[in-house]
Amino acid sequence: MKLSFIGTGVMGKPMALHLADAGYDVSVYNRTFSKAQTLEPKCKAFETIQACVKDADVIFSIVGYPKDVEEVYAEVMQYAKKGAILVDMTTSSPTLAVKLYQQAKEKGFFMIDAPVTGGDLGAINATLSIMVGGDEPIFNQILPMLKAMGSTITYMGKEGSGMHAKLANQTVIAGAVIGVAEALIYAKEKGLDLNKMLNVITGGSANSWQAKNNGAKMIVKDYEPGFFVKHYLKDLKLVLEEKGNLNLEVVEKVAKAYQILEDHGYGDKGTQSIIEYYLQNMK
Amino acid sequence: MKLSFIGTGVMGKPMALHLADAGYDVSVYNRTFSKAQTLEPKCKAFETIQACVKDADVIFSIVGYPKDVEEVYAEVMQYAKKGAILVDMTTSSPTLAVKLYQQAKEKGFFMIDAPVTGGDLGAINATLSIMVGGDEPIFNQILPMLKAMGSTITYMGKEGSGMHAKLANQTVIAGAVIGVAEALIYAKEKGLDLNKMLNVITGGSANSWQAKNNGAKMIVKDYEPGFFVKHYLKDLKLVLEEKGNLNLEVVEKVAKAYQILEDHGYGDKGTQSIIEYYLQNMK
Repeated sequence: MKLSFIGTGVMGKPMALHLADAGYDVSVYNRTFSKAQTLEPKCKAFETIQACVKDADVIFSIVGYPKDVEEVYAEVMQYAKKGAILVDMTTSSPTLAVKLYQQAKEKGFFMIDAPVTGGDLGAINATLSIMVGGDEPIFNQILPMLKAMGSTITYMGKEGSGMHAKLANQTVIAGAVIGVAEALIYAKEKGLDLNKMLNVITGGSANSWQAKNNGAKMIVKDYEPGFFVKHYLKDLKLVLEEKGNLNLEVVEKVAKAYQILEDHGYGDKGTQSIIEYYLQNMK
Repeated sequence: MKLSFIGTGVMGKPMALHLADAGYDVSVYNRTFSKAQTLEPKCKAFETIQACVKDADVIFSIVGYPKDVEEVYAEVMQYAKKGAILVDMTTSSPTLAVKLYQQAKEKGFFMIDAPVTGGDLGAINATLSIMVGGDEPIFNQILPMLKAMGSTITYMGKEGSGMHAKLANQTVIAGAVIGVAEALIYAKEKGLDLNKMLNVITGGSANSWQAKNNGAKMIVKDYEPGFFVKHYLKDLKLVLEEKGNLNLEVVEKVAKAYQILEDHGYGDKGTQSIIEYYLQNMK
């Protein structure tokens, strides 16, 4: 079975390598060719999308923003074999995912949306959680490939459902991370020892992955990403684009805070840097 | 050593019984005398605060609201022995805790603030987390008693620090619980299977105690408390009273949502009922 993988960045590189390790014949493409070359000899690197995808049975992608997804699939649908399965794993727009699904159908392809959580470590260790939208029989065909990249694979429903699930997941994080930031700011203002405070928080019903991991980083002002502010802001904007008449007040607040952080030069910092929004009293 | 325990409700009853089981001579008082009587014969029940506290070396309390705390200690400080240690374990106002600490000092007592987390199960199993403010030597004197009631005892600093720590803890929960609610509302609107969604959420960096426990209850609309809306709203209002110039936007949003829930008759429901704020689009 011939596979293509488009986008061999921090996430895509280990994911493509896992597919190769699982015995698939994997072609890779990256906008910066030298990055694709680092996957050789396990994968074969190509300089154009056309060359990369023309013989592929299944084509995966994980790129940056919805506009990148749109550009990539405009080309893919021009050059891929009829009957190919296209799997976008970028966290992207559910509306775009539905549009691409329909275009693919019209042009004789099958499209699946399959964004992931678990970060670079999840990609490296093949422990990603993958949320899948699209036709279930197609999902079942690619399941062995997804299992090579992740440890939790969840079929969420029709086209776009994988993207919606990922956005809902990011919504949970919005509340969790800002709650930790407001609590630490309050505790600091009241002169409490923040490490003791975090021990209390993580010892009971306030505990969360965000408190344990990003809380500890907030205390020492370690803003290394982790998960980039600019990428998380993209995700939250997608939630707001998709929310319709829903009243998602906390997502709105958190998106606003991250927008202000990005405007202040924090786009390439980790999401834990939201504590600076409070420390600097940014407006 | 003679101890008194004031307030033998859902929390106070098992806490007082643990002290008795640890070998202390425990007198108990409750506004409703019959509730205090249910602790006999392990503890001795009294019909007045005066009779309950007059011989005590250490007096504990866990009552409802700051005004109850104020009333209780007005009486306690009238009738307790000079040199007695007074320990308020109610989640109450840090400002009131500081005021009572000073009054106690003037009148020849020692005052400690020691609110708890862990709920009724933590009280029953003696696994409470107890956050302590006040003079450290006094803290050390009562530490064996606190250890009879809790498994994590943290000395947070001077008078009021225990209360501040508890309020910071409640602030973390505010973000966590509302993030879960907004995510589930989004997922529901997009037609996703909410149980699958919660599995995804709890499998990664969105995971939290609130998602795991209250998320599951939100899905099936099980609003049994748990932790009462009316009590949590009290805690959030205390945070807002104490925050000074801090910009705690999410606490404000969440307090507003719970106020609206209380106004709609949800005061005696569990905090997970915040999902109804979104489902009913309450204003």
